[in-house]
Amino acid sequence: MKLAPEALAGFAARAFAAVGVTPEAAHEIAQLVVDADLHGADTHGVFRLRQYIDGIREGAVNPRPQIHLVHESPASALLDGDNGVGHYVMAQAMRTAIAKAKAANVCWVGTRHSNHVGALGTFARLALGHDVVAICMSVSSVNLMAPWGGAELLLGTNPFAFVVPGGDEGPVVFDMSSSVVAYGLVRGAAQRGEAIPEGWMIDKQGRPLTDPKKALEGLVLPLGGAKGYGIALMVALLGGVLNGAAVGRDVPSITEQSNDPVNAGQTIVVANIAAFDEVTAFKARVDELVRTMRGAQRLPGVDAIRVPGERSFAIARERRASGVPMRQAVLQSLDQLARELGIAGPGG
Amino acid sequence: MKLAPEALAGFAARAFAAVGVTPEAAHEIAQLVVDADLHGADTHGVFRLRQYIDGIREGAVNPRPQIHLVHESPASALLDGDNGVGHYVMAQAMRTAIAKAKAANVCWVGTRHSNHVGALGTFARLALGHDVVAICMSVSSVNLMAPWGGAELLLGTNPFAFVVPGGDEGPVVFDMSSSVVAYGLVRGAAQRGEAIPEGWMIDKQGRPLTDPKKALEGLVLPLGGAKGYGIALMVALLGGVLNGAAVGRDVPSITEQSNDPVNAGQTIVVANIAAFDEVTAFKARVDELVRTMRGAQRLPGVDAIRVPGERSFAIARERRASGVPMRQAVLQSLDQLARELGIAGPGG
Repeated sequence: MKLAPEALAGFAARAFAAVGVTPEAAHEIAQLVVDADLHGADTHGVFRLRQYIDGIREGAVNPRPQIHLVHESPASALLDGDNGVGHYVMAQAMRTAIAKAKAANVCWVGTRHSNHVGALGTFARLALGHDVVAICMSVSSVNLMAPWGGAELLLGTNPFAFVVPGGDEGPVVFDMSSSVVAYGLVRGAAQRGEAIPEGWMIDKQGRPLTDPKKALEGLVLPLGGAKGYGIALMVALLGGVLNGAAVGRDVPSITEQSNDPVNAGQTIVVANIAAFDEVTAFKARVDELVRTMRGAQRLPGVDAIRVPGERSFAIARERRASGVPMRQAVLQSLDQLARELGIAGPGG
Repeated sequence: MKLAPEALAGFAARAFAAVGVTPEAAHEIAQLVVDADLHGADTHGVFRLRQYIDGIREGAVNPRPQIHLVHESPASALLDGDNGVGHYVMAQAMRTAIAKAKAANVCWVGTRHSNHVGALGTFARLALGHDVVAICMSVSSVNLMAPWGGAELLLGTNPFAFVVPGGDEGPVVFDMSSSVVAYGLVRGAAQRGEAIPEGWMIDKQGRPLTDPKKALEGLVLPLGGAKGYGIALMVALLGGVLNGAAVGRDVPSITEQSNDPVNAGQTIVVANIAAFDEVTAFKARVDELVRTMRGAQRLPGVDAIRVPGERSFAIARERRASGVPMRQAVLQSLDQLARELGIAGPGG
């Protein structure tokens, strides 16, 4: 079953509006949520819609935030998201960062009192068209990992992303969690009743955990061991501590139920390409490097070498044309949500 | 055999001065090279001295660079290293970034026509004492990795690093290559005649490569597969392409001998803590997060949980007090270098 992205976004907008988000904000948030579905991040789009809507219904998220600047200078800003929907806060942070970077050449923007932002790549892509490069990082609103050697959930799978525009070869957009895999893949496997591979999670005795239904008893493994721990900690420090957002024991672990605001934090750094080089020349060199990667000799059995973001853009082209494939379980859950909210479902 | 860090640095300074570096620059570079030895990065310190000295002797590196600004604004700068020793260029870039960030709150500095910088952590530590946070990245001056799925050396093990100052619990300094391990560990194993574990390298058919003497026939594996490739490419784009430094086929692979300048690039982003929060309060929260990590419940058999940089600082304290342990082969190579240069060896 496939749904037009417009239909999905329309439904998401109705759902947010039904729980008190302004129509304008509901429309913007819905576009950002469905952007993840469109680009193939299936566990970070409408799959999470119930979580976002329930957060607002249960009072954990503010449907009508007054987002405001706590600190500001030409090259920096700290934004207080007033506990609004994370997508809404993060998009405003990115717009602020881009506008300031176009004026001051560089801008570093932090957020506090934000929430879950879905797929970080969505916000990285907002920088496209502005002739800037950007680095984004996001402190997860739930802890799923332990420090390296630890058995206690004290770190999120804190992702970071970067975006670099190109010319004919298109941009490079890279979005990675600091874990071996994003937790959405574990949730997806659980929903499909499949086992997860060894190496994704361990239990609190350090043994491999392969049954995703037991995920709440385990720890998601950091990417490359101690290095992924270091990346997750970097994001916690630069995206959380620096912004006055929650980290460590102030972030709920996946096993804790709470309706308290999560005080999520994000950080965005944007640089204006023109401060370093002529933009067209820069994009031509990006293209050249992308072509070099794609044209490299391949290992036996490899059909193509890609650059980060390439697959997502291909998926988005296909899904814009022919719709977003939806699993039955997700569709049923969205229809159920529609009935609860008294709105038309994603099928119209 | 242990040598006082002062003796090692004195020797390194004599060596650089002997090949035409000014006494002041030779002293500074020597301190930066030995800083790696001091902090336990044994394959990134004087282990590389011959490579640096030979680079100058063979005309590949300029002993008396005129480092200059190509572009400059309050929050950005592009530095041309005039093909000077990488440590010298990178230290000046970091000083520029810190000074500008103290005035403009944020600064993004790029370098071009730089060279190998040794351990990136050395430069991250230069930010300590200035109440800033910093992110550094460096495009390797030699290609050791392939794009994911590739069999051709087109990317360096491009490292990145970050530094965040703390209070009583000390700073967090994290320095990682985008490969499973830094290539120095492969070189070290080769020198000791030891095998390397599966998972570090593959041959060009995709099979595990465990004999470090055959390293030139293989590919260093990126950290976590496609993710490490993404990180390496990010560094190539933001530290190389944006700065007009060499990337891709313009960087020699490990199998190529060349005396041409390498045009290495680095990027540093510094943010002034005071633009986001009161500095003392920030450091107290860093301390709290560090204590949370260290105090986490541990997996069976784990004796301690550390934060990045902790082990390096402990090694530095010990080595400042009792000297830097030197393997016989390295000492002999340094003594040989001393004879060639007509200077006193590291033993005095």
